[in-house]
Amino acid sequence: MSTSNFVDVSHHLSPETRARGVNPMKDIIRIALENPNLIALANGDPDSALNPISRIDYSVASVTSGEDPVLEWIALGANAPTQVLSTSQDEESKLRLRTALRYGHGAGHPDALQTVSRLTNAYHHAPHHVPTMTLGNADAITKVFRLLGGPGDYFLADEFTFIPMPLAAEAHGVKWVPVTIDAGGIVPEELERILASWDPERGRRPHVLYTVPSGQNPTGSTLTVERRKRIYEIAQRYDLIIVEDDPYYFLQYDLDKADGTAPKKFPPSFLSMDVDGRVIRIDSFSKIMAPGMRLGWITSHPTFHNHLVKLIDLSTQHPHGFGQVLITQLLGPSGWQLTGFDRWVRGLCAEYQRRRDLLLALFARDVASTGLASTYVPQAGMFLWARVHFERHPRFKGALPLEGRAGDGEGARVPRTNTRQLMKELFDACVAGGLLICPAYVFTIGTDPKYDDVPSHVDDRSHFIRLTFAGSEETMTAGIPILGRVLKEFFAGAPEA
Amino acid sequence: MSTSNFVDVSHHLSPETRARGVNPMKDIIRIALENPNLIALANGDPDSALNPISRIDYSVASVTSGEDPVLEWIALGANAPTQVLSTSQDEESKLRLRTALRYGHGAGHPDALQTVSRLTNAYHHAPHHVPTMTLGNADAITKVFRLLGGPGDYFLADEFTFIPMPLAAEAHGVKWVPVTIDAGGIVPEELERILASWDPERGRRPHVLYTVPSGQNPTGSTLTVERRKRIYEIAQRYDLIIVEDDPYYFLQYDLDKADGTAPKKFPPSFLSMDVDGRVIRIDSFSKIMAPGMRLGWITSHPTFHNHLVKLIDLSTQHPHGFGQVLITQLLGPSGWQLTGFDRWVRGLCAEYQRRRDLLLALFARDVASTGLASTYVPQAGMFLWARVHFERHPRFKGALPLEGRAGDGEGARVPRTNTRQLMKELFDACVAGGLLICPAYVFTIGTDPKYDDVPSHVDDRSHFIRLTFAGSEETMTAGIPILGRVLKEFFAGAPEA
Repeated sequence: MSTSNFVDVSHHLSPETRARGVNPMKDIIRIALENPNLIALANGDPDSALNPISRIDYSVASVTSGEDPVLEWIALGANAPTQVLSTSQDEESKLRLRTALRYGHGAGHPDALQTVSRLTNAYHHAPHHVPTMTLGNADAITKVFRLLGGPGDYFLADEFTFIPMPLAAEAHGVKWVPVTIDAGGIVPEELERILASWDPERGRRPHVLYTVPSGQNPTGSTLTVERRKRIYEIAQRYDLIIVEDDPYYFLQYDLDKADGTAPKKFPPSFLSMDVDGRVIRIDSFSKIMAPGMRLGWITSHPTFHNHLVKLIDLSTQHPHGFGQVLITQLLGPSGWQLTGFDRWVRGLCAEYQRRRDLLLALFARDVASTGLASTYVPQAGMFLWARVHFERHPRFKGALPLEGRAGDGEGARVPRTNTRQLMKELFDACVAGGLLICPAYVFTIGTDPKYDDVPSHVDDRSHFIRLTFAGSEETMTAGIPILGRVLKEFFAGAPEA
Repeated sequence: MSTSNFVDVSHHLSPETRARGVNPMKDIIRIALENPNLIALANGDPDSALNPISRIDYSVASVTSGEDPVLEWIALGANAPTQVLSTSQDEESKLRLRTALRYGHGAGHPDALQTVSRLTNAYHHAPHHVPTMTLGNADAITKVFRLLGGPGDYFLADEFTFIPMPLAAEAHGVKWVPVTIDAGGIVPEELERILASWDPERGRRPHVLYTVPSGQNPTGSTLTVERRKRIYEIAQRYDLIIVEDDPYYFLQYDLDKADGTAPKKFPPSFLSMDVDGRVIRIDSFSKIMAPGMRLGWITSHPTFHNHLVKLIDLSTQHPHGFGQVLITQLLGPSGWQLTGFDRWVRGLCAEYQRRRDLLLALFARDVASTGLASTYVPQAGMFLWARVHFERHPRFKGALPLEGRAGDGEGARVPRTNTRQLMKELFDACVAGGLLICPAYVFTIGTDPKYDDVPSHVDDRSHFIRLTFAGSEETMTAGIPILGRVLKEFFAGAPEA
């Protein structure tokens, strides 16, 4: 991995500032750490004895009783058994409040870092990588993108993606190149085609691939193991950094049952394949605990970790102590520990799989049966990606006149169909019918119309809708029949006058 | 206030992206909010029923018993009376966990925003300003600087300041212009001189003033009311945005006693004077509760608030629910409420004032008595700024030869003394003697040697050391005699051979 792929966050600093280091106070702190007997009148932290919070008790689900802790948690509601994780100013606990609510190291408190490191090592093989705490994946991705590129750089991404993430990079000048994605994740041949045929006049060849390998949002696709291996090999040949954003990793379905002695591992991540240090993995507690926690972690090569910490020191500083205490206690000796955590996430997998299966059954009955839309079975995450067969619509136009383009009419530079318009009408019809869905066009990343990064124009490829099974059975049971009805009415509409 | 002073965070976005809005998902969310009866299969938030945290209890100091709640908190330690602020998934409370631990609005949860708004209105007069939650002042300042400028822009700042803050702006291309500061804060005449004599060849005239008005770090200075008024008037004439970073606002000393009916107000902030909407005020819970909370808030004109929220959506997202629940409960009807909060912060003022007075007394006895250093009485914050009289040192050089500069030898372009070298030696001597202090040179912002922004070279002005009174009595009592002794030995050292 070429370190020239990193942007030093201090690249704008004057030579004088660089010469004395990004933060000269660090020297003072270093001297204090190296000389614990020094009397310090230097550091100006508030006295922790004046912190008015003396204790926090977190009541969390108990994972020791019952067959499936998640089933029990839902079934018993307020009566479900809980355990209390406590932390106070001074009492013995894994991470005391007095420490957790002080200013801390940008990467996170050592106890919290050790906690996520143990978690990572239980599910991945990453002996040469180190953790950095984050404020959840949005924060992590923003920082990673900031360090990986700027104006004039191109990053590669899944052609449909959760838009605030690529926009975070666009907002400081990075341009995006979409890569075709299907039920098995991004298509390695398409990735390689883009890199092999890159026009140097366009700019520097992309050096970053941003991808969501499990239960991708919005397509619900999960990269097959075979594709992961091929993509990693392409990354090696073209010196790509892989940003593996994996918030749905712990929500995977149709896993083989554990054999009773040890739980079966989830499919291998890019991190687990990373012999070069080119993978930056991004994990979050949002989908498995609660998104309002705003806590996650990055696992990366130490070189990148050092850049990250510098950026953290010049922006958000370290994450809040509340979440760091919680996960340290939760996964520590008096909490769930790793075994209990695994029971919890496997319970979540089973629960979301039940919801997925309900949505699939409803979809088959009320939507696929119309012949107007179809879908595939997502292996992870929270989303069903349904293709609407607009080509069967009476007002579908499959060969709009080409404007402003020479050539044979192939390529991605101009929309050739009225898919975008029909999707907007379908969306409005759903809303009028009482149902809110997500049309594909809210997930498309900007493309340069001068290049055929994907085989057809993004508008022509936006014939999908995203449906979630994260919600309740009631919502799905009430919503899917509406979708079937609206589709039938919409497709039966009068042909264009 | 000219809105051309704001950088739109989306300025790098392509015209197509701009046309459809920064985040097209926002439209879907808007439709959901406007049509609460819609069945939503659109949003993919994790089901909050699957959040394993059912309850959080925060034990906080009781502020109702005793004369001074802070004194009691310190004196009684683990036996001090506490009250428990609870929040659970569904029970009635000001902000339920089910809501607080969901994804939320970038500006913060409405209840938390209302809480800080009430707090702001109790201490300031800001009828046309709105709050935005932040992850503490470092996060707030970074975001504000990002929105206010970029490469080619100049910002003004206190000539000595806490360096990570200006570096956060330098790291994305902003250059700094230092303004002379003394015991009464930045000097308005100097501010005006810089603006009035600005050389257009240097670039665009500065449009941002970043200042810490109360207990400034490191100088401990507090802007006088008279200077605040003059600076605001200069800001109006030169169309400056004032970034008022005020983490020590609630730690002010020598306040008149309350008359028994209503507590005396703290001195007026820039925010309270802001008829134009040109003040962006930054507040934090770090110094009055705990820095590891990573929670604060910005108070600004709604226009700037809108830019901020856009940036938050493309970076950290909203702050963690843990802190938002805590402050909402703390200042709500079952917590301290505003009256109790005021008792707590006045207790903190009294406690830190006692520590300040101890440090001043020790300094007078052991340091000022040597004639080798002197200080002034800080009216706020945590720091004593002591001037070392290096001109009395046997190896002091007051007229180093001028290099590479025409003219009469005045001005700030070249150091004329060996102050910087002597300070480094003094710092090392302190460490060797067992004491850690902060030399002024770790707080100096970069300057352009081609311009006389301050009247002498920053090295020649770095004859200060910062001492903190945030620590314990024991530390101060043990540390200051060392400083006195080291100073005497250092100044008695052999003259240069």
